[in-house]
Amino acid sequence: MAAAANAFAPSTSSTRSASTSLNASGVARNPNFAKLAGGYLFPEIGRRRNAYLEENPEMASRIISLGIGDTTMPIPEHILSGLVDGATKLGTKEGYSGYGAAEGLEELRQKIATVLYKDIISPDEVFVSDGAKCDIMRVQQMFGPGVVSAVQDPSYPVYVDTSVMMGQTGDIDSATSQYENIVYMPCNAENDFFPDYAALPRADVVYFCSPNNPTGAAATKDQLTELVKTCKERGSILVFDAAYAPFIRDPNVPKSIFEIEGAKECAIECNSFSKYAGFTGVRLGWTVIPTDLTFADGTPVRQDFSRVMATAFNGASNIVQGGGLACLDPEGQAEIEVLIDYYLENAMLLKDAMKEIGFKVFGGDNAPYVFVQLPEGKSSWEMFSEMLEKAQVVTIPGAGFGPGGEGYLRLSAFAPRDSIIEACDRLKKAMV
Amino acid sequence: MAAAANAFAPSTSSTRSASTSLNASGVARNPNFAKLAGGYLFPEIGRRRNAYLEENPEMASRIISLGIGDTTMPIPEHILSGLVDGATKLGTKEGYSGYGAAEGLEELRQKIATVLYKDIISPDEVFVSDGAKCDIMRVQQMFGPGVVSAVQDPSYPVYVDTSVMMGQTGDIDSATSQYENIVYMPCNAENDFFPDYAALPRADVVYFCSPNNPTGAAATKDQLTELVKTCKERGSILVFDAAYAPFIRDPNVPKSIFEIEGAKECAIECNSFSKYAGFTGVRLGWTVIPTDLTFADGTPVRQDFSRVMATAFNGASNIVQGGGLACLDPEGQAEIEVLIDYYLENAMLLKDAMKEIGFKVFGGDNAPYVFVQLPEGKSSWEMFSEMLEKAQVVTIPGAGFGPGGEGYLRLSAFAPRDSIIEACDRLKKAMV
Repeated sequence: MAAAANAFAPSTSSTRSASTSLNASGVARNPNFAKLAGGYLFPEIGRRRNAYLEENPEMASRIISLGIGDTTMPIPEHILSGLVDGATKLGTKEGYSGYGAAEGLEELRQKIATVLYKDIISPDEVFVSDGAKCDIMRVQQMFGPGVVSAVQDPSYPVYVDTSVMMGQTGDIDSATSQYENIVYMPCNAENDFFPDYAALPRADVVYFCSPNNPTGAAATKDQLTELVKTCKERGSILVFDAAYAPFIRDPNVPKSIFEIEGAKECAIECNSFSKYAGFTGVRLGWTVIPTDLTFADGTPVRQDFSRVMATAFNGASNIVQGGGLACLDPEGQAEIEVLIDYYLENAMLLKDAMKEIGFKVFGGDNAPYVFVQLPEGKSSWEMFSEMLEKAQVVTIPGAGFGPGGEGYLRLSAFAPRDSIIEACDRLKKAMV
Repeated sequence: MAAAANAFAPSTSSTRSASTSLNASGVARNPNFAKLAGGYLFPEIGRRRNAYLEENPEMASRIISLGIGDTTMPIPEHILSGLVDGATKLGTKEGYSGYGAAEGLEELRQKIATVLYKDIISPDEVFVSDGAKCDIMRVQQMFGPGVVSAVQDPSYPVYVDTSVMMGQTGDIDSATSQYENIVYMPCNAENDFFPDYAALPRADVVYFCSPNNPTGAAATKDQLTELVKTCKERGSILVFDAAYAPFIRDPNVPKSIFEIEGAKECAIECNSFSKYAGFTGVRLGWTVIPTDLTFADGTPVRQDFSRVMATAFNGASNIVQGGGLACLDPEGQAEIEVLIDYYLENAMLLKDAMKEIGFKVFGGDNAPYVFVQLPEGKSSWEMFSEMLEKAQVVTIPGAGFGPGGEGYLRLSAFAPRDSIIEACDRLKKAMV
C-alpha cells in the first residue's frame, strides 16, 4: 500500500535519523525558516521597548507608542451594534449559524462590491477573510515556491518574510540585507517613493502597497496606470495592498487598483477593515481576485485561491462579518469618516512637529504614517533608541522594513490625541 | 541592486513568457495545485445536493443534512455573554483593544492549560487560533515541502490536501486514489480502526485524529501509548487532532495526547472550540506545541510555529476570545456538557436506526460520527445518492475521506433532534 511512498522518498528509513540531541525528533527543520533573518519586526520592537523598561522601570507610565500601526479609538455605535447583534443572535434558534461559506457571507461580498467598489467588481470576485496579513500568506500559498516576487523597498515585512517561508528565495546577503531572488524596488525621497519597475528585473508577482506602509506615499492615477501597463507587458501579477485606502483625501489618488484600466487582467487587491473601522483586534479583511485573471496555462487564479480558502481556512467569524455589514451602512460609513479624520489630524500634528525639529518629512497626507528622513549618517535603529531613551516615544526604524528604509523612521498616527500632543512636545524638547 | 535576483532565477526574462491565452499572465500555475484531485470534499457534497434539488425542486423542504459536521444548537447563555461582552467593551475607551498577541490572550492560554489540561502543559505552549483547520495549514507551512506525511485512511481531507498544496507529494495514482509520497495508514473494521504504524513506512509527520473523523473510533490509552512509542522510536512528529475530545465518555480513552508518557517529546495537539461549544461559525481553536519538541537540528518546533503565527496570522478575534474565556468558566463547562450530551444522544438514535436497517455500525459512542459499513459491492457514493434520492438525507460517502473509506458512510449527529428522528424514520422505511 505504501510502496509508492517509499519509492518517491528514498531518504526516509524505517528508523530515526541521526540527530544532535537524544530527545530531538528525526524531522529536518524546514530550511526556508532557517533563512529568516531575526524575528518578525513588530514583536522585535516590543522586545526592545521591554528591554528598555527593564533597565528603566520608572519610565513605564511615560511610554507613548507611535510604533505598530494599531488603532486606539473605540468602535463607534452603529458598527458596534453590528458586532453585538452578530453575537447576540447566535443565542437564538433562528439566529444561530455554524460554518459559513469559506469566501464569506453573500450579503457582505455584495455590499463590499457595491458600497466600496461601486460595482466595478462583482461580489463573486470578493473573498472575505480574517485580515490582509493572513490573505498575503494565502496568496503566497497559492503562488507556491516557484515564483519570483518583487517588493517595494522599504515595505511591510510580511511580503518578504512569507516569500522566504514559502521557499521562493535564497539566503540573505549580509552585506546588502537583501534575500537572493527577491526583486527589491527602491522607494525613497529621490524617486518620489515610486519605483521604476520597468527598469528592474521582471518578477512573477509584484507586491505594491498604496497608500504605502511605511513611507506614507500614495501613488497617483498616472503612476498606477504606468505600473499596471508594465505588469501587463511583462506578464506579472500585481498584488495591490489597499489596506490604507480610506485615508486617501486627494481625488487624484485611486482608492482601488481596479480604478485603473487593465488592472482586472493583471491585479489582485488585498484589503482590510483593520485600519478602516478599528478592527485590528476584531479581524476582518478581504481579497479581490478578478474572474479574468489567469495563470499562464489559462487556469483562473480565482479557482486556486478558492481552493486555498476552502481547504486551509473556514471563513471569517460570523460575528465579525456582522460588524463588517454595519461598516458599510450609511451610518457606519459616516462613523468611519470621523475615525479617519481623527487619525489624519494626528498625522498632521506629527508632521508639523517633525518639521519643526528640522527633519525632512514625507507621507501623512493620504496615509496614517509619517516617514521621517534622518540626518546623514544616523542609522534608523540609532534614532529609534534615541527617541525611546530621550522621550520614551516608540517609533519604527525604517530599516525594519527592508534595507531601503535605512535613514528613515516611521511614526504612526494611530494613538489617542493627547498622546500625540505629548509625544510631539517631548520630541521637540528632546531632539533639538 | 537586483543582480542577485537575476543570478538566482535564470528563467525570468524581462518580458512575459509565452502563454496559452492573450490575456493570461506570464505566471506559471503552482504545479502542486494541479495535482489536487477534485474540489474540497464538503463543497462537493453541497454541489451534489444542489444538483439533486435542481431536478427535484419540490424536495427542497424535505432535505435533512447529516453531512458536514456542523453544530446546530444555539450558543448557551453564559458562553454567549462572553461573546457579547467581548463585542460590547470595544465601544468603550477602557475596553477597546487593537492587535493582541498572535498567540492569543495570556488569560485564555492560561485557562486552556489549567481547565482543559490540568496544567500538564504550560500556557506558553498554547497557541490560540481561529480554528483547527487553519492550524493544520500553519503546521504544514512550518514543516514545509520536504517532509513525508502519514495519514489515517480514511481521514479528514485537510491533512492530505494541505500536504499536496505544500508540495510534499507526487501525483495521485488513479488506480489506488493515493498520492505518491503520503503514507496511508488503513483504518477499518478489520483493525479496530487503529493503524499499525510500526509496520508501515516511516513518515516525518503522522496526522492522527481521535476520536476520529470520519470513523468515530476513539483510541484507547494502550493504543495511544503504542503510537507515541513508535513515533519516538522513529523520530516522527505526531500531530494529534483532538477536535472531538469533548465527546469522550469512556474513562479509558485519553482526551489529550499529553496524557500519554513521552508525548511531550514527539507530539503537537490541534484542538478547537468548534464542536465543543458550537463555535463552528464563531472560529476559535488552539494548538499545543511542547517546549521540549525539537527538529533534528535541535531547533524548538515552537520557535518556528511562533514565527508562522506572528508573520502569517494576527491572532484570533478579541471578541471571540472573550467567548473562549466564558467556555472555560464552570458555568460554561456545565453548558457544554448539555450540548455534548444532546449530540451524543443523537448519535445513539442514528446508530440504533442503522442497526435496525441491518447495517454494521461503528463509532458514535465517544464521537459525534456514526460510521456505517455498507453491504459488499455497494460504493459509498452510490449509497450517498440512494439515501439522498430515497429519503432526502444528506450523508458523506466514506470514499470522500480517502480510498480506505470506500464501503462506508459517515452520518453526523450534529442536527436538531426532530431532524434526527425524522431522518431515522425515513431511512428505516426507505432502505429496507
